Amino acid sequence: MSAQPMLINGEWRAASADAATFSPFNPATGEKLTATYPIASAAEINDLLDAGTVAAQELRALHVSKIADFLNGYADAIDAASEELAAIATSETGLPVAPRLTAVEIPRTTGQLRQAAGAAQSDEWTNPVIDAANNLRSRLESLGKPVLTIGPNNFPFAFNGIAGGDFAAAVAAGHPIIAKAHPAHPGTSQRLAELAQGAAQAAGLPQAMIQLFYHMDPEVGASLCGDTRLGAIGFTGSEATGRKIKAAADVAGIPAYLEMSSINPVAFLPGVMQEKAVALADEFAGSCLLGVGQFCTNPGLILTVAGEATETFITQAAQGFAGAASGVMLTPELPKHLDSGVKHLTDQGAELLARGVESTEAGARGRPALLRIAGAAFVANPNGFQNEMFGPASLIVVAADEAELLAVGAQLHASLTCSFYTAADGADDALYDQLLPIIAQKSGRILNDKMPTGVAVSPAMVHGGPFPAGGHPGFTAVGIPASLRRFGALKCYDNVRASRLPASLRD
Amino acid sequence: MSAQPMLINGEWRAASADAATFSPFNPATGEKLTATYPIASAAEINDLLDAGTVAAQELRALHVSKIADFLNGYADAIDAASEELAAIATSETGLPVAPRLTAVEIPRTTGQLRQAAGAAQSDEWTNPVIDAANNLRSRLESLGKPVLTIGPNNFPFAFNGIAGGDFAAAVAAGHPIIAKAHPAHPGTSQRLAELAQGAAQAAGLPQAMIQLFYHMDPEVGASLCGDTRLGAIGFTGSEATGRKIKAAADVAGIPAYLEMSSINPVAFLPGVMQEKAVALADEFAGSCLLGVGQFCTNPGLILTVAGEATETFITQAAQGFAGAASGVMLTPELPKHLDSGVKHLTDQGAELLARGVESTEAGARGRPALLRIAGAAFVANPNGFQNEMFGPASLIVVAADEAELLAVGAQLHASLTCSFYTAADGADDALYDQLLPIIAQKSGRILNDKMPTGVAVSPAMVHGGPFPAGGHPGFTAVGIPASLRRFGALKCYDNVRASRLPASLRD
Repeated sequence: MSAQPMLINGEWRAASADAATFSPFNPATGEKLTATYPIASAAEINDLLDAGTVAAQELRALHVSKIADFLNGYADAIDAASEELAAIATSETGLPVAPRLTAVEIPRTTGQLRQAAGAAQSDEWTNPVIDAANNLRSRLESLGKPVLTIGPNNFPFAFNGIAGGDFAAAVAAGHPIIAKAHPAHPGTSQRLAELAQGAAQAAGLPQAMIQLFYHMDPEVGASLCGDTRLGAIGFTGSEATGRKIKAAADVAGIPAYLEMSSINPVAFLPGVMQEKAVALADEFAGSCLLGVGQFCTNPGLILTVAGEATETFITQAAQGFAGAASGVMLTPELPKHLDSGVKHLTDQGAELLARGVESTEAGARGRPALLRIAGAAFVANPNGFQNEMFGPASLIVVAADEAELLAVGAQLHASLTCSFYTAADGADDALYDQLLPIIAQKSGRILNDKMPTGVAVSPAMVHGGPFPAGGHPGFTAVGIPASLRRFGALKCYDNVRASRLPASLRD
Repeated sequence: MSAQPMLINGEWRAASADAATFSPFNPATGEKLTATYPIASAAEINDLLDAGTVAAQELRALHVSKIADFLNGYADAIDAASEELAAIATSETGLPVAPRLTAVEIPRTTGQLRQAAGAAQSDEWTNPVIDAANNLRSRLESLGKPVLTIGPNNFPFAFNGIAGGDFAAAVAAGHPIIAKAHPAHPGTSQRLAELAQGAAQAAGLPQAMIQLFYHMDPEVGASLCGDTRLGAIGFTGSEATGRKIKAAADVAGIPAYLEMSSINPVAFLPGVMQEKAVALADEFAGSCLLGVGQFCTNPGLILTVAGEATETFITQAAQGFAGAASGVMLTPELPKHLDSGVKHLTDQGAELLARGVESTEAGARGRPALLRIAGAAFVANPNGFQNEMFGPASLIVVAADEAELLAVGAQLHASLTCSFYTAADGADDALYDQLLPIIAQKSGRILNDKMPTGVAVSPAMVHGGPFPAGGHPGFTAVGIPASLRRFGALKCYDNVRASRLPASLRD
């Protein structure tokens, strides 16, 4: 069986006969899937960049309504193919068809595309400013170059480089896309690209508006990410990969927006623990175990203060983890990574409170894990206890007292989120006021009385944070129109004749 | 005479006895000034960072009105000391006391500080977004860490790290400042820091709100710029230094906003050349020679199409340059750099059309230079003809025809500005429409019928551009409130209790 083609300059191009290839796994069965996908060569990457450059020039001459038509048409096409897409995706990712894919993630994805269509036709994201007295006007506009989008393993639709949030935002802001499929779900990405290409052609967009490849060698990747033909990069994935992308992009001055790993601290303060330790434990365990814990915003670090109620919380949470099944994870490597993450923590001195029910079934199954460490031990070795364990696992830090809790907070790394549960009667308010400033400056989203797992597509959402949780502290990967602004170049029109001004900058 | 003290943690600290020191020159006389200034040690830089960290924590608890009080009080103090400050600055920079310093640059500086005071008290820069239905709210807020500000040689007030645009914006956005004086005007910076410190204390700001040092070794500089105790860096200066700062900051994920060198292309299209070649030449020469050409936005590259009118323009401009005096430049090195820049161009094949009147007077005097190159030669060696010549010098590119002009445009590097002069009767409009998209995407500011030298402090100004003209294409170093947003961390408040919300995010 020959390797699947890449989408280059509007055509599905067969890989060269000597191209290296790979095949994804079905994580539910552990079996390798039969389709093979090529690893892009440097020459193919060069063709993608050249074609994207031409597309960016052509796009400049088109009305934004064509971009909106494309995004709406693509959303419709995805909705129409929802069952087919979910079937491909579940075979590659092990994610349940329903409700996860057809009822949650695909509607979220098409909703994002339609919101982006609206944003493309509005001036809101461009922040227009008119200083008529000085005849100076400014706005954000397209970078005038293609954007590279690289999605993660855990959302084959909503964060896919060819359909997800970065894709929608970069297209809406006026950019051709060079998408890299995640190698764990290349078939899903290929089918999406077929739908995207059809919608782009129907909308009259440039031939190379949408391009797709599946994988590349590290040297080719570094060369691509530092190529000045790129306007920007949107990436969601691991910190290790994100740092490599950033290093290559930085040298060339290419903005790289990275949404990387995060342990998402959740603090349960003593007063609320007194009020409802058991309910909190159930809420925490449910959130951490949801979707086999495969979320960027999974609660991976729990902050508590020692006491009877905290012991009740821990006992209850440990029961929840001990009784939880080992669910199918996205790739065969992930359960191994999870186990080595757990071993790393116990090697550092953490106590293993519980592991979930071991599975004898086939496939890549991640066994839940709950661990515990004393606050003093955490403070003594803060880097040893903050490695993300991607999956249904969490570490409970038990501080001896409030002062130790503050000391723990001071040692936290950057995260996407930080959550605070506090007593209804205000008993925790003084401690909250002390803890908040220490932790909040390290996170993009601050939550009260709520687990961080959900990431609503709202204009006020922030999915990002200080490096290395995010790539730049001033931006968000989720939320329209804010996410479009990552891909904006700020331009001033100084004394430009009225007839030449963009419509939104005219008096 | 012992070295001057640095401002560290609210105190003027004497340099250690074994500190290396330097003295600035009076460029008007060529003589070394008597005051000596220390090169900061790694230990002193560490103290600055530690003190700035504490100040950032303290600042969080204070009302923004104190920041506004400080900025207004500091502006008043500078105005009151204007004559004294100008006297120090002229001795260190050779810039004329009047009108340049007392009538233009100092009022611009205090105007910026007062505008920043207003911006600090307004929510506008924070982009507040309220999604009440989902109880999600977002805004930009302080990074919660000190900002390092590094100013250039050419604006001892308006872009000084201790008083200029980056300083004003970073303070207004809620940050303590660690300022590095430019070593060409340390005495000016020291006096400014004394005034700033007095105003900060009067306003009740933290002890280490404002800190100052003068110079550092490259290794110490790299360590400082990559220290995660910094929230961000604002830099104006040379591309070589800016690239080093960025490289160090990037590894640590610290946003570095850089305003680097730029050659600022100015296109005179054939129709307008027909209309008024002589007037255009005078306008160009006046702009390029203004202030001995020492502006980031100096017109260093002129784009024309061959023809009789263009020859008239060139002859007239060359007369202007030939008759121009050799003015005092900011440092003794600059005239040498200018001469080597001119030699570089002639070595590459450019024709030297004119040099200004050679000076027999003392001091650092820059001799104006005007050069010419054919479009074909430029296109054949585009990198050879785009080195910035900081000073009163410019290169005229004469394209054989319109197609060659477009080819020249396609080879241009990033610039802060691009300017287009076109015929009043519309004769150049078709060519403008072709040339604009090629050049405009490489520049932060697009001008019509106007030289780029002036940079108005307007909410719609953009002083920035794609790398390496600027550090990030989405931001501006000049213009309030936009310049504050460089120093903003985007935060979401998710389900946060109403009483804990910032005022601007309440319903």
